[in-house]
Amino acid sequence: MTPFTAPTQDQLLAIKVNAGIEELAQSETFAAAEADMVEAIVEGVGAFAAGEFAPLNRIGDLEGAQLENGVVRLPDGFEAAYDQYVAQGWNSIASPTEFGGQGLPFTLACNVIENLGAANMAFTLLPMLSVGAIEAIEHHGSEAQKAMYMPQLVSGEWSGTMNLTEPQAGSDVGALRSTAELIESGEHAGKYKIQGQKIYITWGEHDLAKNIIHLVLARLPGAPEGSRGISLFVVPKYHVNADGSLGARNDLRCVSIEHKLGINASPTCVMSYGDNGECIGELIGAENRGLAAMFTMMNNARINVGSQGVQIAERALQQAIYYANDRVQSARAGAADREPVAIVEHPDVRRMLLRMKSLTEATRALLYYTAGQTDRGTLGDKDAGMRGDILVPMIKAWGTDTGIDVASIGIQIHGGMGFVEETGAAQHYRDARIAPIYEGTNGIQAADLVTRKLGLENGAAYAALMADIVCDAADEPALADLAKTCAHIAEWMRDTASLDDKLAGSVPFCTMSAIAVAGWQMLLQKQAVDNGSSPALAAIKPVTTRYFLDHVVPEAAGLKASATHGAALLYALSAEQLAG
Amino acid sequence: MTPFTAPTQDQLLAIKVNAGIEELAQSETFAAAEADMVEAIVEGVGAFAAGEFAPLNRIGDLEGAQLENGVVRLPDGFEAAYDQYVAQGWNSIASPTEFGGQGLPFTLACNVIENLGAANMAFTLLPMLSVGAIEAIEHHGSEAQKAMYMPQLVSGEWSGTMNLTEPQAGSDVGALRSTAELIESGEHAGKYKIQGQKIYITWGEHDLAKNIIHLVLARLPGAPEGSRGISLFVVPKYHVNADGSLGARNDLRCVSIEHKLGINASPTCVMSYGDNGECIGELIGAENRGLAAMFTMMNNARINVGSQGVQIAERALQQAIYYANDRVQSARAGAADREPVAIVEHPDVRRMLLRMKSLTEATRALLYYTAGQTDRGTLGDKDAGMRGDILVPMIKAWGTDTGIDVASIGIQIHGGMGFVEETGAAQHYRDARIAPIYEGTNGIQAADLVTRKLGLENGAAYAALMADIVCDAADEPALADLAKTCAHIAEWMRDTASLDDKLAGSVPFCTMSAIAVAGWQMLLQKQAVDNGSSPALAAIKPVTTRYFLDHVVPEAAGLKASATHGAALLYALSAEQLAG
Repeated sequence: MTPFTAPTQDQLLAIKVNAGIEELAQSETFAAAEADMVEAIVEGVGAFAAGEFAPLNRIGDLEGAQLENGVVRLPDGFEAAYDQYVAQGWNSIASPTEFGGQGLPFTLACNVIENLGAANMAFTLLPMLSVGAIEAIEHHGSEAQKAMYMPQLVSGEWSGTMNLTEPQAGSDVGALRSTAELIESGEHAGKYKIQGQKIYITWGEHDLAKNIIHLVLARLPGAPEGSRGISLFVVPKYHVNADGSLGARNDLRCVSIEHKLGINASPTCVMSYGDNGECIGELIGAENRGLAAMFTMMNNARINVGSQGVQIAERALQQAIYYANDRVQSARAGAADREPVAIVEHPDVRRMLLRMKSLTEATRALLYYTAGQTDRGTLGDKDAGMRGDILVPMIKAWGTDTGIDVASIGIQIHGGMGFVEETGAAQHYRDARIAPIYEGTNGIQAADLVTRKLGLENGAAYAALMADIVCDAADEPALADLAKTCAHIAEWMRDTASLDDKLAGSVPFCTMSAIAVAGWQMLLQKQAVDNGSSPALAAIKPVTTRYFLDHVVPEAAGLKASATHGAALLYALSAEQLAG
Repeated sequence: MTPFTAPTQDQLLAIKVNAGIEELAQSETFAAAEADMVEAIVEGVGAFAAGEFAPLNRIGDLEGAQLENGVVRLPDGFEAAYDQYVAQGWNSIASPTEFGGQGLPFTLACNVIENLGAANMAFTLLPMLSVGAIEAIEHHGSEAQKAMYMPQLVSGEWSGTMNLTEPQAGSDVGALRSTAELIESGEHAGKYKIQGQKIYITWGEHDLAKNIIHLVLARLPGAPEGSRGISLFVVPKYHVNADGSLGARNDLRCVSIEHKLGINASPTCVMSYGDNGECIGELIGAENRGLAAMFTMMNNARINVGSQGVQIAERALQQAIYYANDRVQSARAGAADREPVAIVEHPDVRRMLLRMKSLTEATRALLYYTAGQTDRGTLGDKDAGMRGDILVPMIKAWGTDTGIDVASIGIQIHGGMGFVEETGAAQHYRDARIAPIYEGTNGIQAADLVTRKLGLENGAAYAALMADIVCDAADEPALADLAKTCAHIAEWMRDTASLDDKLAGSVPFCTMSAIAVAGWQMLLQKQAVDNGSSPALAAIKPVTTRYFLDHVVPEAAGLKASATHGAALLYALSAEQLAG
């Protein structure tokens, strides 16, 4: 696997143009996010990711996380790198200053995750999942709970997990059966006994952090059925004493870890709580309001999963470019001399590379646009917050689908070498495949877009987004047409289509929408670099933008039929006939 | 992994409608291919593949081929299954009767490979590669060579390999450096000493067959440089005595096998010839004409690799349908009762399944249309043979790309389970990834289409194909438009575009062309089942055809811009800028 170099210049551009960091820094809340600080973070974490996380990507894949006698072992180097990560403060970028965080915009925390994940996607799931625990406790915990858990979670000394899924409760979280029962008296009076088994718990067990704070969804006795009867509990691996020191081990354990297609260094655990009836947890927030609490932190998690598409794309791109410049094979078609050239000179290899690069930059532009809107929402700009909500399913679904596409092209550029594991190109293709599945499958993202997000402000919020694109794309008819088409489909979905028809067209519609927004954000980047700043980017960006607008946007227009044909054909065959 | 059931009815339909088996059987050459025989083969090999090859697919992936002291070991069961395969005569379908073959159309051999490969893609590469050796010796060998090698190759008692690639000679076969030197006197007078190392040799070493006949490309002393100085040699693992019995071991060995992303049961060997200067081979065909000889057998090999896309798609589809019917999760959107249903009932899961099914059937229709045209070519129909030549890059490239897409959707339908290796869905995604690479990368297929095949009959051959589609698609405007668009692009490529422009648009153009032809062949199937035959198919085919015409064909139309934009943008950035 080739080394990783952080795409610092393109990230700084996206943070400036698409996230609008300068405007964010004008607020009191984010005043610290001034230009010098932004550059220091982006450059600093890029160097850290390249130096500490990237060299562990291949060994993490090869050796993977291993469960031995209930303990999860990571390959050599992971513990030291995590210690460095904590020591350098990278975990605390966007957390509240009162708990030791740096209080910076989510946009910059996104950049930390993007760089670390491009260097090592499996490893970076550890801090990514901790973010959820931090946000849950920050927004729903009592003052005592915050004081007890926040400082170490913010610093990264402790890590966090999210425990939703059970074998019968995947996309349908409401079907979960884990239980929690109030402890009436004794040492743990007022706390709860937790019992149940959870699956797919990312980094559910490991020794890199000194404690693991599990956020667990479970049912109280007599709770309503379904999603209205679920409460949220904080369940530490080690009990925490009143003075903050660690106490005895809680009654929870990792039963097994999954043998997966990719992200092998990320232990995906089956967790068992309360095997001995002694698993103690605390209620976070109100009874039966656990799912709502969980959903409040899902937006940022989904953005970070969308970012994984960008991460894999960037890494696969760098590797493919390196190989294409290095590998000499065949003369240039039509060349008078028959001298073999580096394959980067062949038109179709160029096409593949430019496609990879253009898609990588476009997903990044969409990522930071989404992050920036989310940050504006935090500052109280309701319209921007709503726009952020609309963008979340787009970056999650299209970003992760694109990650796979780009990784697959990366293999293709390597030819036979791409299929040989030693090369490293295949790892990206394997790692990338999880991202469209977890944190809400891409089908669920698309359903969220057409059933919830299209309805915001009676459709006006989505319409305004597409209108902004049309307005800025006066000289780009393909992009303007795509945005108009999206707006029309949205109207049809809102006014005419049945629920089934909407859902039937949801995935292609989500893709079209994402490409329209990403194309627009690329256009804004191109206009920004025209005015100076980085000379390298000023040469590159017009080309990658042009490719996106002239190739990718017309392809998206080809999805219109799929988005609008409705559900009738899908049900023309019975389930038995489909199988026949 | 779920069991495999051969898609017999759909295969029989494709063999009848798309390959036109009844017309083939009217020729003297293929008179044996009458209806009863065709059914017996398709049903027989389908049952054999399901019963003997399919159960070995997962263990083949898990344990893989292992090299131990120069011997390649396969998991338990492979040897017995191969013995059965040979005993039942499945290897000899399309081989000449004079050497023990059955003299049936290539179309039926294709069906054998399709069924075996859907059951076990990695295993089926063993007989697939033997086909090349058989064809090489049949068409270019001397009578003595045919007598010596053909009977056991035809029966399958011996297997064959193709040795083209060397580390510096991949797509550019002409760059190879292996040598052959005439032996002037002694026991092996008239034969050649072979020396060199070959890589990516599929099933280069194993013990399933009693002998392995390696077809090796090498250079004679003083041969011209490049592709005009390459000769073809037959190099047996064990020498063959005059009476046909096996003699001493030849001086060749498997040095190592690759650790790959998929098809783990297929040993991909680095082969070393003549480590001790004693590797003996015989020249096949004329000196320096080896590459031409190799190319004559590439067409059928490429069709069979295209078939691997169909194979993976079929297997992934069956697994996804099984899971979608079995997995209960969430209530139907908008349903009054909140009872969870099998996920097959959810609109987006339906969409994914119907897409998988439609793409699987469409690639199969194109596969058998290509095979049937090739058989007509064998019978002397020059136009059909030429059409077959045009179709080869389409089925190879689009078929294999589609195999990946369908396998990826298959994972998505499984949700988190799809990423867990035990489920088996991930294996298809890994196995599928090699097919766009080997037997000429898909980029090379597309280059073949736009540089060679478009030129056949000065463009009239391709134009006639598209005209046939337009003619039959009078009631299907989207399909007719796509075919017209393809025809226009072909004219532009022939008359106006530079070589670079052609190559820059070649891959999207190849995809568009393939989808146009496949849509047409689906339409013909739909019209054929309207007239009766299988009632199950009569219900299914109109729906899968409709999906293809209403969803996939419009997407293909969206590729027009990419096919026609030319190469200028691809070279707007230098190789250094691309990397920056």
